[in-house]
Amino acid sequence: MNPAAIFDCFTAYQKTAAMQASIDIGLFSAIASGASTPAAIARACDASPKGVRVLCDYWTVQGFLVKAPDASYRLTPEAATFLDRASPAYMGGTIGFLNGAIAPFFDRLTQAVRHGGCETSGSVEPEYEGWIPFAQEMGTMMFPTAQAMAKLIGPISAGRVLDVAAGHGLFGIVLAQQNPGLHVTALDWPKVLEVAARNATRMGVGDRYATIPGDAFQAELQGPYDLILLTNLLHHFSAEQGTALLKRFRAALKPGGRLVTLEFVPNNDRVSPPTSAIFQLVMLGTTASGDAYTFTELDRMLRAAGFADNRLHQPEESMQQVIVST
Amino acid sequence: MNPAAIFDCFTAYQKTAAMQASIDIGLFSAIASGASTPAAIARACDASPKGVRVLCDYWTVQGFLVKAPDASYRLTPEAATFLDRASPAYMGGTIGFLNGAIAPFFDRLTQAVRHGGCETSGSVEPEYEGWIPFAQEMGTMMFPTAQAMAKLIGPISAGRVLDVAAGHGLFGIVLAQQNPGLHVTALDWPKVLEVAARNATRMGVGDRYATIPGDAFQAELQGPYDLILLTNLLHHFSAEQGTALLKRFRAALKPGGRLVTLEFVPNNDRVSPPTSAIFQLVMLGTTASGDAYTFTELDRMLRAAGFADNRLHQPEESMQQVIVST
Repeated sequence: MNPAAIFDCFTAYQKTAAMQASIDIGLFSAIASGASTPAAIARACDASPKGVRVLCDYWTVQGFLVKAPDASYRLTPEAATFLDRASPAYMGGTIGFLNGAIAPFFDRLTQAVRHGGCETSGSVEPEYEGWIPFAQEMGTMMFPTAQAMAKLIGPISAGRVLDVAAGHGLFGIVLAQQNPGLHVTALDWPKVLEVAARNATRMGVGDRYATIPGDAFQAELQGPYDLILLTNLLHHFSAEQGTALLKRFRAALKPGGRLVTLEFVPNNDRVSPPTSAIFQLVMLGTTASGDAYTFTELDRMLRAAGFADNRLHQPEESMQQVIVST
Repeated sequence: MNPAAIFDCFTAYQKTAAMQASIDIGLFSAIASGASTPAAIARACDASPKGVRVLCDYWTVQGFLVKAPDASYRLTPEAATFLDRASPAYMGGTIGFLNGAIAPFFDRLTQAVRHGGCETSGSVEPEYEGWIPFAQEMGTMMFPTAQAMAKLIGPISAGRVLDVAAGHGLFGIVLAQQNPGLHVTALDWPKVLEVAARNATRMGVGDRYATIPGDAFQAELQGPYDLILLTNLLHHFSAEQGTALLKRFRAALKPGGRLVTLEFVPNNDRVSPPTSAIFQLVMLGTTASGDAYTFTELDRMLRAAGFADNRLHQPEESMQQVIVST
């Protein structure tokens, strides 16, 4: 028996650090722009040839670069798509949230395991600063999911949509792009809404975009709405808190209106699908009482809030799951 | 195309944090001792049932636990061998060095890439504190390699061995155990030698174990020796510094004596085998001018120091490579 998989756990942080350094110096973008030797890449990145050589060898081992016999490097298709700043699907910016904002919570994971959650209110404290880089950086990564949700929702001729905890705003914005009669109202902390509103303008729907700055538990929701988008919010709270929120949204919907919830929904075994199962750990570490809820649990919360018909969907373009409730 | 592999890099630190928390609370050991439900494991670990459930689900996804339909957990053979404190091959302690001592260097990896190495003398500064947990914790993990090296060296009826940068001392100690006529002299920093000497006594060779406290570049080596063990030291230094060290060892060997070097030796492509290739990154981040040297480079250094015959071996029990020089 070989301890390699365990050794890999003990040193996994090095992989994130190598990615952070590569994003920081623009390593993949420099290679995409034509630099292929350590000397040329180092010049383009203002880094040392030795540092670049070591990073490039590392990513060759990890499968994001290909090293030629002449010791030049090129990007794999995956790296070219997601790690070159010039690619529309570039997601390098998300490391600022996923490593920068979230990582400090993981330094206290042992305490969270002992305590059953983060000992402070964590990422759900009012005006938590981490949501600003989240909003700035996570949009690109969520774009395929936003498109999948719009497809699932289908065409809407006219009406009003509330985008709760809008963040980057992509979910409401993509929906507004595809439905020219739709007006979107985004709810989030004030500084986060500045990012969402900028994105709405940039993406051509600024004239149909309103905002409600504040707390989802307390803000005046300014209903009624035809559709409410509830994306990646419930997992931050206990089932009781979630049910209280859902009651507020139920009251803000028109008769026949729909609530569309995007979540990491593990199966009842809680160990599949992997991304949603692993998300339990992120909530344990970063919130006081949040969790990745199973569909059984979410259905119970939704029913308690008055949503009688709740259906789980797995869009193939997304790592997450969608529940449509009426 | 799916960004899952890239997302995994951005969040890889979470895997180390989950392992650190699991080792801290003794999760795997509690399951090995018979606790199998979150409630029972939580009691045994003085942790919360929710925290334990989330960690256990996480390790089920990662393949170190198996979750039964009744939501009880058991260890995989790998976890039972390496992660149960009661197992002779337990390596949980090594996270204290691999994460505790080494991780802070990786917070400055971007600077190291720009600069071509750690901007301080890093892990090779005199009396670097990290070598004490290294010596205390890494012995178990190196035991299979120490046995493989003793096998490669073959029986020695009598003589003197110098174990340079002995650390935990395992390499010299295992050799002394297998060769009752052998006397071992261990060289390292004084506080590290305390650990090596304790291990020598515990493993029954204390009466044939001497120590030289100090710096490998400067200490009086007290030769001549029949055999010198040079384990995991050269990678901390530049090729010039390494050659200077090798000349000292050459001068301390008897005629016909052997130098046995344990190293992470990447192939000339520098991207295989994976463990040795990846080790380049650890040296970039933790030393000013160290590297994982290819055999071509090591042979050049050894020849410059007077070792004419250098042979590379890959013991199948080890992630590392061995060079025998005469």
